[in-house]
Amino acid sequence: MAPEWLKSYKRSYLQGDMSAGIIVTIMLIPQSLAYALLAGLPPQIGLYASILPLIAYAVFGTSMTLAVGPVAVASLMTATALTPLATPGSSEYTFLAMQLAMFTGVIYLLCGVFRLGFLSHLLSHPVINGFIIGSAILIAISQLKGILGVSIPNGSVVDTLSSLYASLGLINYPTLYIGIASIAFLFYARNGLASLLNKLGLSKEQAGLLTKLAPMVVVIISTLLVGTNDWAGVLGVKIVGSIPEGLPSLSYSLPTVAQSKSLLMPALLIFIVGFIESVSVAQSLALRRQQKIKPNKELFGLGAANAASALSGGYPVVGGFARSVVNYAAGANTPLASIFSAVLMLIVLLGFTGYFFYLPHAVLAATIIVAVLGMVDFSTVKHTWKYSKADGLSLLGTTLTVILVGVEPGILVGVSISILSYLWNASHPHIAIVGRVEGTEHFRNIERYSVQTLPNAVFIRIDENLFFGNIQAVEETIHSVLHQHPEVQNIVILGPAINSIDSTALEVLCALNTQIGAMKKKLHLAEIKGPVMDRLRGSDLISELTGNNFLHAYEAFEALARRA
Amino acid sequence: MAPEWLKSYKRSYLQGDMSAGIIVTIMLIPQSLAYALLAGLPPQIGLYASILPLIAYAVFGTSMTLAVGPVAVASLMTATALTPLATPGSSEYTFLAMQLAMFTGVIYLLCGVFRLGFLSHLLSHPVINGFIIGSAILIAISQLKGILGVSIPNGSVVDTLSSLYASLGLINYPTLYIGIASIAFLFYARNGLASLLNKLGLSKEQAGLLTKLAPMVVVIISTLLVGTNDWAGVLGVKIVGSIPEGLPSLSYSLPTVAQSKSLLMPALLIFIVGFIESVSVAQSLALRRQQKIKPNKELFGLGAANAASALSGGYPVVGGFARSVVNYAAGANTPLASIFSAVLMLIVLLGFTGYFFYLPHAVLAATIIVAVLGMVDFSTVKHTWKYSKADGLSLLGTTLTVILVGVEPGILVGVSISILSYLWNASHPHIAIVGRVEGTEHFRNIERYSVQTLPNAVFIRIDENLFFGNIQAVEETIHSVLHQHPEVQNIVILGPAINSIDSTALEVLCALNTQIGAMKKKLHLAEIKGPVMDRLRGSDLISELTGNNFLHAYEAFEALARRA
Repeated sequence: MAPEWLKSYKRSYLQGDMSAGIIVTIMLIPQSLAYALLAGLPPQIGLYASILPLIAYAVFGTSMTLAVGPVAVASLMTATALTPLATPGSSEYTFLAMQLAMFTGVIYLLCGVFRLGFLSHLLSHPVINGFIIGSAILIAISQLKGILGVSIPNGSVVDTLSSLYASLGLINYPTLYIGIASIAFLFYARNGLASLLNKLGLSKEQAGLLTKLAPMVVVIISTLLVGTNDWAGVLGVKIVGSIPEGLPSLSYSLPTVAQSKSLLMPALLIFIVGFIESVSVAQSLALRRQQKIKPNKELFGLGAANAASALSGGYPVVGGFARSVVNYAAGANTPLASIFSAVLMLIVLLGFTGYFFYLPHAVLAATIIVAVLGMVDFSTVKHTWKYSKADGLSLLGTTLTVILVGVEPGILVGVSISILSYLWNASHPHIAIVGRVEGTEHFRNIERYSVQTLPNAVFIRIDENLFFGNIQAVEETIHSVLHQHPEVQNIVILGPAINSIDSTALEVLCALNTQIGAMKKKLHLAEIKGPVMDRLRGSDLISELTGNNFLHAYEAFEALARRA
Repeated sequence: MAPEWLKSYKRSYLQGDMSAGIIVTIMLIPQSLAYALLAGLPPQIGLYASILPLIAYAVFGTSMTLAVGPVAVASLMTATALTPLATPGSSEYTFLAMQLAMFTGVIYLLCGVFRLGFLSHLLSHPVINGFIIGSAILIAISQLKGILGVSIPNGSVVDTLSSLYASLGLINYPTLYIGIASIAFLFYARNGLASLLNKLGLSKEQAGLLTKLAPMVVVIISTLLVGTNDWAGVLGVKIVGSIPEGLPSLSYSLPTVAQSKSLLMPALLIFIVGFIESVSVAQSLALRRQQKIKPNKELFGLGAANAASALSGGYPVVGGFARSVVNYAAGANTPLASIFSAVLMLIVLLGFTGYFFYLPHAVLAATIIVAVLGMVDFSTVKHTWKYSKADGLSLLGTTLTVILVGVEPGILVGVSISILSYLWNASHPHIAIVGRVEGTEHFRNIERYSVQTLPNAVFIRIDENLFFGNIQAVEETIHSVLHQHPEVQNIVILGPAINSIDSTALEVLCALNTQIGAMKKKLHLAEIKGPVMDRLRGSDLISELTGNNFLHAYEAFEALARRA
């Protein structure tokens, strides 16, 4: 069962795939070490999560350029989920991280089998943006201890900030200088270096790619400086230390029931966030080359990647934004680029982990801080707020809850706000009383236009699907009309914008019809759409309708005008 | 601040109000005792909840005929909420019941202040119906112990049934005979008696009203029989015993924080269920007389009634269906009828509670069973299932969860199912590719009609509001079209059924517009409604639209036909 892309592989693809594979690997080495640190795991776990998952996705995924592996947000979520369950860095913690990847993978696969990809649509952009901003700030704050060279326990953002404040006397200044220098260089690389290289004659694309190598440059320079001067021993700079060489053992043992229960919810949230990030990146890259990804198949590709991560001792993986874009820009034509990356990471793991012995933690912390702050875009907040207060609130609510309460409550609050605000909107439908534009077949709002009306009939147009949440509003409007205009004999509901009627709405309409009949008046329908009428046929509303079911509003208008 | 109805009171109203007040009181006496029993409270609490609340609602409510007081479902919910917190019948339990009424009242009042009445719309009819059926079955099962004359602890339905089975050897047969005879008579009164009385010369309405007095008849006969023959002493028939005479003391003391926490959720659910029942009854009765109730003011009326119940030692009250209908049919013209009822109940409480000493519990249990089984209507289940499988599922899911798990989880499950199924529907919008009906300005689905299309343009009509839940489906459709028909240069989105676009949908449309532009193709809009366009103006979608923003589909068709 060779993947599609392999069957139609062309020799001309090879160069692009190879160079993309190399460039992504150079990005991936510091990131995988840093994100493992962020997740509270030993550094080699980041390397493990960067080998088999890439191959699994290459075989089962549908995107040509998505780069799967450890990412910042999923690492933070892993740390949040596991810190209450075990001591970070312990073997139990590592075991649970591996289980979390397996749970995430199984959820992906189950959603793939039951075609539940639509669940991920429950997260609106404001929630996702709010979540990313909140997580980025949370991650940046959590890495300050690495820059300052102090040890503080994991905890809430308030605890972390107060512990940092209390530790200000214990700052390791050499570490701080390394951290600040790294941050400064990485920010410069992100913002100024590209235009400098551009001026020096490199193409814009080449310059952009080169700047992505900056973290690796910082890693090499800092490791050399710390190693040759023994800053770890002399100045107390905290370093990565020995990373076990060699392959992870491929194995899996079942978690306990209690562990499973505590891992289920975090795995579900990592799945939702990871799936949305992966699919949206994959989709936007595919479209630029007129390719297509299949979201339901992506569930299998990403599920296989997470299961592979679990089997090889890793932790949850995601198709990340930054590396995927680099992979694309560096010329990746097929997932062979990721397979090259995996092979290169394997080589690093087999023989080169010793080279990272003197790598300072502060550099990894700096890499994380610069990466996550790059994800924060405050103009989005402004735009969202301007377009819709409800969406702005769900963004800010999510951000604040993520920062002050936690990652998981943040998502839940955001989802609740966005669902409630959607329901609120749908529960307050636009209902217009309309009249006929003289001499035409068009009907317009009587409050906005000068239109013809009939003394014995009111035409009500409802611009929303009728469901349990808004049918009361419709009922109240009709009651008001009947109460205020006792002379009205006919109520006409116009339904050109009604796409569905649920059984609650149907029952209320039936009751209204009966009530209107008891008053010796009539309820009419007009312009009900085909699919809606298909379902209404056979219901009491149609069989006992006191008035008529008109195809067009003007038909109703003319018929009722004759009766006036 | 005299209520509206009192200012315009006419002398001719008096007779109707008095006779309605008397008939409702005769119904209310056995019901208030029985429902207090169901709620796990001493019988006098039911009487307390039938005096001040009626007066409070008469002053602050807006319905002319709603009869407020203890009802079956709220009594069950009270028992469910309080049983884990205190021993039924104890003074702590009674104290908590009073607090529950206060919490419920405060929630009503807060929702009134913040105009949150719309929250009650989150319960769809299938959920309400499923809830009523489940509660009725649960209540009926809980009363079997009263009919059998055995004592078993409160518990889940499975526990209750197995305890009943284990107690079959302990049945008190005289109690069982009284219970069965009462049930039989009450069922006959409900179904056969009215037509008999009708044949005997009474009008249909008079006959209907007379049958409502059946519970009082059973109460009187059974009390006389048990009292004169001392069946309680001789045969062990369980009786109500002494009910303290005299007024409840008007007082209120605050609950502890722990008590408040456990009462909040039950009070919220009692509020939601009670508000929906009260408003729907009030509304349907008001409409029959061309009157109008104001749902937001009802929040104050019902809130005042519950607070009054709490202050006078009662428990949560609701505007009940059965008594309100009787009140209406017996000729109540204004809330003065309820004030008469309250005064009569007060007289009973002051001097006549001794008359209920020999009233057997089995009769109260029979009253409850017949009343609640009258609320079960299986034809609703059939209708709902036939009209919509999703609505049918939320009905059955609610019923089963209520019976097997409990009242509160049942409501939560029902609400979740109905919201999810609404979101599922909205997430799977009807999207049609349309063409022009030759020679007209109408556009129809190309799969259903033979229509004109253009080689260089595709017209896509989306029959749903665009929001975070369904914009992906729109995106995927457009991606598919672009992928399958590379010759297409123009995508036209038709929006006659789009009533709103949230910021997620807007961002996706902007991204699509950019992607389509990058392919040297164009995205056009047509027939976007006024209010939607008002909000879109100023967004990137409009300012950077690659194509045109047409008023009508046929304009777009003609313009693009010229470019083809």
